[in-house]
Formats: sequence, structure tokens, C-alpha cells
Amino acid sequence: MNYLAVDVGGTSTRAVILHDDGTCIAYGTAGSGNPTSSGAEQSVTSIVAATAAAMAQAGLTTSDVAAGVIAIAGAAGGTGARLSTRFAGAGLPTRLTLEPDLLAAYNSGSLASEGYALVAGTGAAAVRIRGGRIEATCDGLGWLLGDAGSGFWIGHRAVLAAISMLDGRGQSTLLAEWVLGELGLHRTSERDRDGRLVALNDAVGALYKLRPVELSRFAPLVFEAEAVGDDVARRIVAEAADALAATLGTVADPDIDGPVVLAGSILSQQPSVAQRVVRSIGNAVDDRRVVMVSDGLPGAAVLALRDDGLRVDHETFERIQTSLTSLR
Amino acid sequence: MNYLAVDVGGTSTRAVILHDDGTCIAYGTAGSGNPTSSGAEQSVTSIVAATAAAMAQAGLTTSDVAAGVIAIAGAAGGTGARLSTRFAGAGLPTRLTLEPDLLAAYNSGSLASEGYALVAGTGAAAVRIRGGRIEATCDGLGWLLGDAGSGFWIGHRAVLAAISMLDGRGQSTLLAEWVLGELGLHRTSERDRDGRLVALNDAVGALYKLRPVELSRFAPLVFEAEAVGDDVARRIVAEAADALAATLGTVADPDIDGPVVLAGSILSQQPSVAQRVVRSIGNAVDDRRVVMVSDGLPGAAVLALRDDGLRVDHETFERIQTSLTSLR
Repeated sequence: MNYLAVDVGGTSTRAVILHDDGTCIAYGTAGSGNPTSSGAEQSVTSIVAATAAAMAQAGLTTSDVAAGVIAIAGAAGGTGARLSTRFAGAGLPTRLTLEPDLLAAYNSGSLASEGYALVAGTGAAAVRIRGGRIEATCDGLGWLLGDAGSGFWIGHRAVLAAISMLDGRGQSTLLAEWVLGELGLHRTSERDRDGRLVALNDAVGALYKLRPVELSRFAPLVFEAEAVGDDVARRIVAEAADALAATLGTVADPDIDGPVVLAGSILSQQPSVAQRVVRSIGNAVDDRRVVMVSDGLPGAAVLALRDDGLRVDHETFERIQTSLTSLR
Repeated sequence: MNYLAVDVGGTSTRAVILHDDGTCIAYGTAGSGNPTSSGAEQSVTSIVAATAAAMAQAGLTTSDVAAGVIAIAGAAGGTGARLSTRFAGAGLPTRLTLEPDLLAAYNSGSLASEGYALVAGTGAAAVRIRGGRIEATCDGLGWLLGDAGSGFWIGHRAVLAAISMLDGRGQSTLLAEWVLGELGLHRTSERDRDGRLVALNDAVGALYKLRPVELSRFAPLVFEAEAVGDDVARRIVAEAADALAATLGTVADPDIDGPVVLAGSILSQQPSVAQRVVRSIGNAVDDRRVVMVSDGLPGAAVLALRDDGLRVDHETFERIQTSLTSLR
């Protein structure tokens, strides 16, 4: 029998069809499916599109698929019913289970029934896993109220550092020039009638035109500036790592010493942040295995099998990983 | 001859008609006129409504009014022309000059041609005045990029402190209970399937429904919590004062030792912040006079006379203040 697994993310939505032995046979992608940042309608559209692409590639019909798992963050009540209706309309499998994307991220790195996951992409959150389910969650509360140490958080601080330097309040940093550059602006000495730099006014105007979460696009500038020794950038990175370590520390439980799975672009693409986080939890979690994963799709596949009552052993898990890698 | 002066604010818009000797003869108010927070259309509507009310109370027609000054923040190019057209259509005076609201705030507290103003209401900014005009500006860059120490800034920190305590990350603070209360919620021990407090989820849902600037409504909770010794609140207030002192310090110039005018609800209604700011600039500005003003309307009246070439002496200034007070 075949299973469907979908990992719904803020940047892309990915779907895979797999056999019950873990062999992945087809793969499809679509755009952002995060319901909080993209809206419920766009979310459902992306999930349907990614699934339809995978089903077409597999050459399967609905009756060939036993069940599916959709790994998604911040799904409101009613999302499951709405998805089933839209899936039915599109001739796609309708036996769907929604699972937290953080659980899928964890299972992308580990089959252990106890452990932790820390995810830092556009947002940031940590979970504690017991008995294969999420027992405690910290942060993941969005750009205005949380997501400490996330891509938005780092990008916002990059912009604040740039703006406050141009405003004469802040410390000197390469980020001022670089944020202006990213906005297609240049720094000149021209000032308006109230003594403000025209480049500052232009930058402020351009930045307020973005949706706040889009500030995450400035995060890479911080890592580049850190790499060349910029003090302000170094401090932002250190504070991001501290914030992520605190989030993970909040869900830590002395009784649970399973692995720590790290996921999301900030942790998977920025070794300096991941190293700092691991170092800061090092004392508390002696000998704990740290696993880095690049996305939650393998974990969603694990959940698709498990939720249908199948046992996922290490052999099956490895088959998921290997066959998925060769499909992408 | 008569003059019109309007002070356009984020909470209310106030208009006054005055004689050239400074005697204020009529007063009108309307709602928010801030073009950034309320939009250009609402801004113009409020300015027209406040002016029409004052003109009606004075029993004057357009030909009785020599000129008018509109003190306004963040007015985009074209605002002056749009205002004149709308004023003409409403039978109101059309010889209008736009002036920065920060200059009006300064002139509400001082006639000196050199000095400083620091305003902290929903937003926050400082200006240096030379030759009666703004020579340098710091901050006033809005909730996402600046306004350090403002009502929004303080309210946002109140909410972050509350949320992170409920999330298990943050220090214990009265603000958690109080922010929930302000949202009509109660703290219970109930948790969702992912181990998160239901009250936290409800608070997050309610807070994301607000426009970000509306978070300024939580600022008063910080001052109440500070008053009863809450450590987190005390730190927020101290950091707000430090931020405002830094903003003022940025525009400080050793050649300019005129008065410092403090304005806006955070400074005029919160003695603890104003005292800290004054103390922190104390060393830098020995003997400098500190003047607290409650709004920019007297200063707008000063500018209305000055912009038409009239000299405003201390007698005239006092007449503006006294007659305006008796009108309100």
C-alpha cells in the first residue's frame, strides 16, 4: 500500500508518496503553505498542488493511497475538514491526519520516542517529545510576539542596526551600507529640511512597504557581516543563539535525555548559530546526540506510516531518507 | 486680523482661531489626524472638521482669517495642495502652511530660537532647533523601525514580557496577569495537546488581531506595575528612559544650549520617565531649562503668527497660553 506525506513550510510545500516499506516513489512541490504567513486559502492551494504533482508523478489514483499526513504549523480548527473537501474535489486521497510540523521535524532526525527538536527558520520554536508525541512547546509565537532567534528576528535586528546608525543613534556597522544595498539604495550625504539623511527616509519608506515577516530576507547579511568581523553583527548572532538556547532550555526535562534535532535554515545553514546553541546546551545535556536535518518531509513520511499503525524501524527510516534524496 | 492654528495628533486634532495679539477666540477638535497611522484621507477629514468647528464657534468667514498653520507629522508631498482644495470646498481659509509637529511642540514650551524638543507619545522623536527651525532630527521612525521609548515601544515590551512568562521563557511579572486581563482573558492551568497554555494561545490570537501600534494601549500597565515594584516593569521603564535620553543626546550640539521641551503622553503623564530623562541629560546640559508641555497647539499658534511675519513676544505667548486654557 502507498502513503502520502506533506511537509508544509513558509517557503515551500513538499509532498511525497511512499510504499509501506519506506520507499519513496514520487515527489511534488508548491509554494508557501504556512497558513499564518500566507493565509488559509493559499495554504490549502499549495498543499493540493504539491500533492497533485506527487500523485501524477506516481501515476496513482486515490484508491491506491491508504492515508496521508500533513505536517503543518498553526493550522486553525477546521483546516482538516477544509483540506479533505478540497482533496476530494481534486481527486486526491481524503483520509488525512494533520500533525504538528515540529513533530515531523523531530522525526526527520530521530525515531526515538523521547527527545527534543529546535527549529529556526523564518520562525523559531522548540518541543519536547515523550512517547512519540509533543509534550511541551516553547515559542513559535510569530514575528510580533516571539520567534526569538529566528530569521525574522535576525533580519529585523539587522534593519534596526542599519537604521539607527543612519539615524545617528547606533553603533557603526557594515549592515547600514548592506541593508541600503539590498533595498537598491545608496548612502549619500544629502539631508532633508529637518536634517535627516535622505537615504534614511528612502530606506524607511521602502521597509514599511514590506510585510514584517519579509524582513527575514536581511538575515543573511548579518552572517556575512559576522564573517568579516562586524561587531554589531557578531552581537546579533550571539543573541540569536542565546535566545534559541533559552527556548530549547525551557522545554528541557531531566527525565528526557533523547536526541536533540536541529532544523530550519538558520540552524542548518549557519554553523555558527548551531555551534553556539549546541555549546550552550552542552553542559545540560551531556552525551546527548545532536542531529541536524534540512527539512521535515522524512519525518512526515515516518508519521504517515506510524499514524496508520505501521512500525517504522531503522531500516525503513533509512529507506525513506535514501529514496527521498534520490527523488529530489 | 485672525489666524488659524491646527495641531494634528495621533489621538486628536485640535484647531484654534486667534487674534494677532495672541488672544485665542475659538477652539475645535476632531479625531486622529496622523496620516501615517490613520491614512491621508482620514487625516484631511479630521483637520477640516476641527477647523470648521473652530470657525463656526468664532463666527468668522474665510476673509476674516489671514493665514493658517497646520502642525503635522509625516505629511507626504501633495498634502498641502490636497488640504487647500478641501478647505476651499468647505469654505475654510486656504492660505495654509504645513509645519512639523515637532517644531510646534517645541514652540509650545519656548520662544527661544535655539533649543531642543523631545516628544514621546505613541511615537518618539527629538529635534534640535536653530534659528527657529529644525536643524536635526532623531528617531520618529515608526513602530517597526524606531520610536524607541515610545508608548508603542513600552506597550510592545509589556506584551512580550507577559507572553514570554506564559511561555515559560520569561521572568515572572505582574504584566502576564494584567495583559491577559486587558484582553478580557484569565489565566488557567489548561494546556493544549502540544503542552501550551490555552490562555497563551488565546492571548496570541487576540494580539495579532490588533494593529501593531495599538499595543501602545498596554503601556499604562507597565507604569502601574512599576509603581508596585515589579522588576520587569521597572526595567522596561528604565530602558525606555535610556532610549529617549539617547535620542535626545543624538541631536545635542555643544553650541546650542537653549531649553529642552518635553512633550507627549509618556513624558507629560509619567513623571518617572521624564525625571530619568532629565537626570540622564543633566550633566550634558547644565542649567538648561526643562519645560514640560501637554500638546503642540500653543506652538502651532506661535508659528501661525510668525509665519505671517509677526513677532511673538513673551506677552503674546502668555496671552496664547492663558486664552487657550480658558477656551478648552
